[in-house]
Amino acid sequence: MVFVSRREHFNAAHRLYNPQWSDQKNEEVFGRCANVNWHGHNFELIVTVKGNPDPDTGFVFDMKKMGDLVKEFIIEKVDHKNLNVDVPFMEGKLASCENLIIEFWKILAPKIKEVRPDSALHSLKLYETPNNFVEYFG
Amino acid sequence: MVFVSRREHFNAAHRLYNPQWSDQKNEEVFGRCANVNWHGHNFELIVTVKGNPDPDTGFVFDMKKMGDLVKEFIIEKVDHKNLNVDVPFMEGKLASCENLIIEFWKILAPKIKEVRPDSALHSLKLYETPNNFVEYFG
Amino acid sequence: MVFVSRREHFNAAHRLYNPQWSDQKNEEVFGRCANVNWHGHNFELIVTVKGNPDPDTGFVFDMKKMGDLVKEFIIEKVDHKNLNVDVPFMEGKLASCENLIIEFWKILAPKIKEVRPDSALHSLKLYETPNNFVEYFG
Amino acid sequence: MVFVSRREHFNAAHRLYNPQWSDQKNEEVFGRCANVNWHGHNFELIVTVKGNPDPDTGFVFDMKKMGDLVKEFIIEKVDHKNLNVDVPFMEGKLASCENLIIEFWKILAPKIKEVRPDSALHSLKLYETPNNFVEYFG
Amino acid sequence: MVFVSRREHFNAAHRLYNPQWSDQKNEEVFGRCANVNWHGHNFELIVTVKGNPDPDTGFVFDMKKMGDLVKEFIIEKVDHKNLNVDVPFMEGKLASCENLIIEFWKILAPKIKEVRPDSALHSLKLYETPNNFVEYFG
Amino acid sequence: MVFVSRREHFNAAHRLYNPQWSDQKNEEVFGRCANVNWHGHNFELIVTVKGNPDPDTGFVFDMKKMGDLVKEFIIEKVDHKNLNVDVPFMEGKLASCENLIIEFWKILAPKIKEVRPDSALHSLKLYETPNNFVEYFG
Repeated sequence: MVFVSRREHFNAAHRLYNPQWSDQKNEEVFGRCANVNWHGHNFELIVTVKGNPDPDTGFVFDMKKMGDLVKEFIIEKVDHKNLNVDVPFMEGKLASCENLIIEFWKILAPKIKEVRPDSALHSLKLYETPNNFVEYFG
Repeated sequence: MVFVSRREHFNAAHRLYNPQWSDQKNEEVFGRCANVNWHGHNFELIVTVKGNPDPDTGFVFDMKKMGDLVKEFIIEKVDHKNLNVDVPFMEGKLASCENLIIEFWKILAPKIKEVRPDSALHSLKLYETPNNFVEYFG
Repeated sequence: MVFVSRREHFNAAHRLYNPQWSDQKNEEVFGRCANVNWHGHNFELIVTVKGNPDPDTGFVFDMKKMGDLVKEFIIEKVDHKNLNVDVPFMEGKLASCENLIIEFWKILAPKIKEVRPDSALHSLKLYETPNNFVEYFG
Repeated sequence: MVFVSRREHFNAAHRLYNPQWSDQKNEEVFGRCANVNWHGHNFELIVTVKGNPDPDTGFVFDMKKMGDLVKEFIIEKVDHKNLNVDVPFMEGKLASCENLIIEFWKILAPKIKEVRPDSALHSLKLYETPNNFVEYFG
Repeated sequence: MVFVSRREHFNAAHRLYNPQWSDQKNEEVFGRCANVNWHGHNFELIVTVKGNPDPDTGFVFDMKKMGDLVKEFIIEKVDHKNLNVDVPFMEGKLASCENLIIEFWKILAPKIKEVRPDSALHSLKLYETPNNFVEYFG
Repeated sequence: MVFVSRREHFNAAHRLYNPQWSDQKNEEVFGRCANVNWHGHNFELIVTVKGNPDPDTGFVFDMKKMGDLVKEFIIEKVDHKNLNVDVPFMEGKLASCENLIIEFWKILAPKIKEVRPDSALHSLKLYETPNNFVEYFG
């Protein structure tokens, strides 16, 4: 089994806040990340798929196809968007990286299976900054 | 003469739009960057000062002091902010990197001179993403 | 379960040598790394914690708090220090990255548990240079 | 158990094509990567070995020795080469990263064991570009 | 005047050799870079344009348009190509980075002027590897 | 005229202190950088040479030769050394990056001229960390 990875990126605005809390409590918990007028990041997403190389192509998964899938189903939905406001699958959810990566998984895992059934999504890694990142294995 | 540089970073939201244009024209010119609900970036700022090393310290400019100046007068004003809405010195200006870096210069150049009069701000470099950046020499 | 990571850095001097060996043997085994007057590195440390996102915050672990913990209990002890001489928890130990990361784990694992009991330290990754690094899972 | 990693790099040409297919089918499947006159990359290889630190050296595996092994048995064979034409161990195999990393493993795993029997090769990671990479655990 | 830069990349094969020299002399001068079956790189190209920000857009030069120009007139010609064989504007020239960047300049400088006459191409920077790069100012 | 650059690196220990000052004054001015037991860095040095490409080789300066020169006359003297104690050309000088880069220039500029008289050293850039660096043009 070989693990193949593809990196994509998107630029988005967000803020961290819990609508059930007062502004003051939001600021206490989330600090500057609760700024009411938003802030933003250059996010980087690394998608890892596992499987055996296809003897005809030498590929676990066609990297160009993986890039296209990630762009169509994830990047198009979040790039140059506001993660709290513009992204249907984040509606009603706190726009933390943890919640974001779980939603990305729900979208991508079945798409990967569909394109090559004997492969599987192995992990997603999401960098909010070079200093802060999250990883999810489903 | 030696050139000394310090890198700092900030995370901010912005959008590109000209208030004298229709929404349609803004979208034609600025594309996804005009998104009405904002987007954002991890900006990196490199500040370069020139001068002769002080014989007592070996320094053109104390890097810690340079970092403190940049943090106090620039980063504090823009980090986790909305560049169109929250930043007094950008009021009435299009929030492009070109305009941003010119304003940063106006603020930093005199502060550098003040701290060490025989040095001078040489250049500012501002990365919006690893692929797009601007530089200004005053 | 989501894995969240925080990167911090420190600059330190060290040398590799075994006090029970002659200088010559130390140089044979450790080469330039045994230099009696020390050398040094910009170390990077990546701390990874696992857990389920808290429904109120969307966080596995507050990244700011994680950064503060790492700074207080690790970075403060090793930054701009000599790892062989200045660091109490390395006393009597060879200042290799392998030994360093094991000591970091002993310090950080209980602190992480203390702050959020239903999370746990998952791994530490320590870069000595971009070409050489070690990882530890406890 | 601690995991120690070493990064090396090499520059090579290759093309993706299946000799049992027509040129047209190769181009359909592999796109620009099938270019008959080759293209190339700066590859980066990360070799990870696991084991317990030796009490006398503090090392899981001497990093200099690991670098020498990787250079002698891998880098020398592929650096400034054509992966389809010049590399004996890739003969008759599609020059994909997946196939390459499997062959690297076959060569390196026994060499690591030979030098320090109570350590073992844990993983290989091969970057074709910063956006595309593969990982293998044997 | 502000300087705006855009980074693009391409993957290509090449070899260094002088057709007027024997194979032996080519190998003496160019070493492994003369390998008859080619080698290759992930090249990075940074294009810098200077000018005054347009008051209506805040732009010295529309970064998206700059990316499109560079892709159409440079990247399309060299990406996944053999620089010695597949690239018309390199015909009869040694495929060194120095010669490559001079040809890129001849193509890009007039295109930049054409799109925005009061801006000008300022410099090109071409990374062959992270360790080796060239810069040209026309 | 084309500018060609080569990056090399070294790992070294140093401390900042002025022997004419008390320990207390040294600590006031240099902070943690004055630590009596040293600290250290992974330094990166970028050497830039200017000239016209040689028509026979396409080279401004043979990059391999440039790497060898830099290694022989700079890296060998400073790598895995203590910059205050082990480096003859730093004797009696404060071990700041500014002073270091001026000494590097004095050594390298004539060597470059010697190897190819119609080229010249253009600049040196020295990274102490990714956040702090100095540049010198002679």
